[in-house]
Amino acid sequence: MANLIYLDNNATTKVDEKVLEVMLPYFSQYYGNPSSIYEFGGKNAKAIAQAREIVKDFFGAKNPKEIIFTASGSESANTAIRGVLSADKSKNHLITTKVEHPCVLNLHKQLEKEGYRVTYAGVNSAGELNIEEIIDAVTDKTALVSCMYANNETGALFPVEIIAEKVKSKNKDTKIFVDAVQAAGKIDINVQNTQIDMMGISGHKFHAPKGIGALYVNSSTLITPLIIGGHQERGKRAGTENVPFIIGLAKAAELAKNSLDYETNEVKRLRDKLERGILSKIYNAKLNSSAQNRVPNTTNIGFEYVEGELILLNMNDFGICASSGSACTSGSLDPSHVLKAMGVPFTALHGSIRFSLSRYTTEDEIDFTIEKMPVIIDKLAKISPFQKELNELKQRKGII
Amino acid sequence: MANLIYLDNNATTKVDEKVLEVMLPYFSQYYGNPSSIYEFGGKNAKAIAQAREIVKDFFGAKNPKEIIFTASGSESANTAIRGVLSADKSKNHLITTKVEHPCVLNLHKQLEKEGYRVTYAGVNSAGELNIEEIIDAVTDKTALVSCMYANNETGALFPVEIIAEKVKSKNKDTKIFVDAVQAAGKIDINVQNTQIDMMGISGHKFHAPKGIGALYVNSSTLITPLIIGGHQERGKRAGTENVPFIIGLAKAAELAKNSLDYETNEVKRLRDKLERGILSKIYNAKLNSSAQNRVPNTTNIGFEYVEGELILLNMNDFGICASSGSACTSGSLDPSHVLKAMGVPFTALHGSIRFSLSRYTTEDEIDFTIEKMPVIIDKLAKISPFQKELNELKQRKGII
Repeated sequence: MANLIYLDNNATTKVDEKVLEVMLPYFSQYYGNPSSIYEFGGKNAKAIAQAREIVKDFFGAKNPKEIIFTASGSESANTAIRGVLSADKSKNHLITTKVEHPCVLNLHKQLEKEGYRVTYAGVNSAGELNIEEIIDAVTDKTALVSCMYANNETGALFPVEIIAEKVKSKNKDTKIFVDAVQAAGKIDINVQNTQIDMMGISGHKFHAPKGIGALYVNSSTLITPLIIGGHQERGKRAGTENVPFIIGLAKAAELAKNSLDYETNEVKRLRDKLERGILSKIYNAKLNSSAQNRVPNTTNIGFEYVEGELILLNMNDFGICASSGSACTSGSLDPSHVLKAMGVPFTALHGSIRFSLSRYTTEDEIDFTIEKMPVIIDKLAKISPFQKELNELKQRKGII
Repeated sequence: MANLIYLDNNATTKVDEKVLEVMLPYFSQYYGNPSSIYEFGGKNAKAIAQAREIVKDFFGAKNPKEIIFTASGSESANTAIRGVLSADKSKNHLITTKVEHPCVLNLHKQLEKEGYRVTYAGVNSAGELNIEEIIDAVTDKTALVSCMYANNETGALFPVEIIAEKVKSKNKDTKIFVDAVQAAGKIDINVQNTQIDMMGISGHKFHAPKGIGALYVNSSTLITPLIIGGHQERGKRAGTENVPFIIGLAKAAELAKNSLDYETNEVKRLRDKLERGILSKIYNAKLNSSAQNRVPNTTNIGFEYVEGELILLNMNDFGICASSGSACTSGSLDPSHVLKAMGVPFTALHGSIRFSLSRYTTEDEIDFTIEKMPVIIDKLAKISPFQKELNELKQRKGII
């Protein structure tokens, strides 16, 4: 494999060496069960309490009791959504968006089968949410509104605080869940002074390992556990605590909080450079991620009349990692549900690539990518079955 | 803290250094998302496929597709039990035992609230199951029989293969789930040539980390996922795969398989030495774990008229870790539901200690424990409020 240029940080991230370092002693040295009465176990309970305090601050929550450690963003979402619905069965209507991550979207499809009515709010061609569509749909039967903070494919930021406020002013009993998996580590996800009831994050999107997540549930929101058993997580999530990963998540949260300035400035600068570089050099490139508010690390670019999978394989030959659609749906050949909801025409739908940077991304890597992308797209355009359309595009752009 | 003598391996175990070693590169070096199309992600998908093959062999399953990686034994049990019940709602009766782990027992209590009828089979004073009680209860309405392989508190082994066979001969449509969390790594848990449909394990009980489990579901058993979302685990469990822990679980399974002889012989020899040592030296000690078939590493001893928590705290002063009840219920002051179901009298119920060894336990540690336990129990007997009863016991034993 060539040198690795990893521009797929919305799929997963490298574990920060500092995160690995704090986790290491908890595997073979301090391996006690935090529920045990003896000192060797109890010190792990204390370590978890410290981690919970840090993760509480990361969310801007009031109380560490509002934090539940889970094993993934998907588990966080399933716990939140199933949790409120089982705790209060008096309402049968749900609202979410068409561009949620599969862990929210597919769960809602399942809930429809179980008898719930679901409103799916759409987005415009920039990937921006029409929040009135959500507010208008709220009735006295609306149990829950689930809306992501940042879209995984376009990076578009949704105004979750405003949505929460407006939903509550229409029905104060409607609960609000925010999937903040793609926002955490990229922007400040503070729930303080908001009306958001629940918020989920996933460690491996901000340099903690895969297999750890957290869920904020405010103290006035009742949920029944998804995983029933022992008393762990105050009875909200059974299973022996993953001590090293919990400690790692807290460290990653701390590091992410300290890196927010760097994300907002330097990561964004490199992302913008990449975006401008590609758009200016490739005539059939088109920005899908044109939302006004966007996380600093993501760009999504459609390459008209070429095939996304072929682009990725050619990028792979240069050691460049990126993705089409989300990793969670990459097993299927279906085009991205997010880009479809945005109305991206089929001519670009199949050739759209998401580039997602991290604080590890270097200027050299961006320069290399800007250099190689035109070579790749040019090569693939030449073998595209859409020669007529490509020529028309060239004429329109005044290239020929 | 004094030197650590860890005799609480049924609560959790030390991660084997060899397990840690194979996991390490997957945190900060090979951190790709296994669902990604590029080589850097795809090699992790291959690593998971290899791990699944090893775990398949550990279960004695036919096909790697029958293995689902989860984040804990509790998640495995919840996935199995909820999974079959959601996939087929035609039956409303469940059978389990009174001595299951909370992740099975509390889930059944919840299922009763949701309208299921549950039969709880009892055990005798040795902790042995009356399997006729299970078989007799099977009707055409019995959806599922859930029975643990080995009890976490007494180590008693239940004849799950015979139970599965007899249940199926009465109702072939009844599904069988075996919680093998306390059996895996201690005995061979082969499902081959059995009628067991599902079996759950937890890595941290056999020297893999906390936060990884697996569930065997045979190809003729349909389950709906507990965690809905992406396509991971063939749609049976959403969430980005915990690559390092999956690889670690496979390594731990391999090591455990290779250590079975050592468990059966050497670990058992040390356990028996500890058991005999304590019982012969302490007049108010009584064996709770007298089941004929028992895992090799566990002994549970009741110390009459003394308080379990005080015993544990005094053991802690010598650096000896053990437990009363299970770690998962140790937050509560309730006496063990397992020992209660066995009819252990209240005079010993509160003073029962579980010692659980591992392949790391040394002869010196056992000798030290045999030396210190009489000192501890003698000291506590002197301050017990049950002096009259202790004197009567002494007289009965011919000590005074």
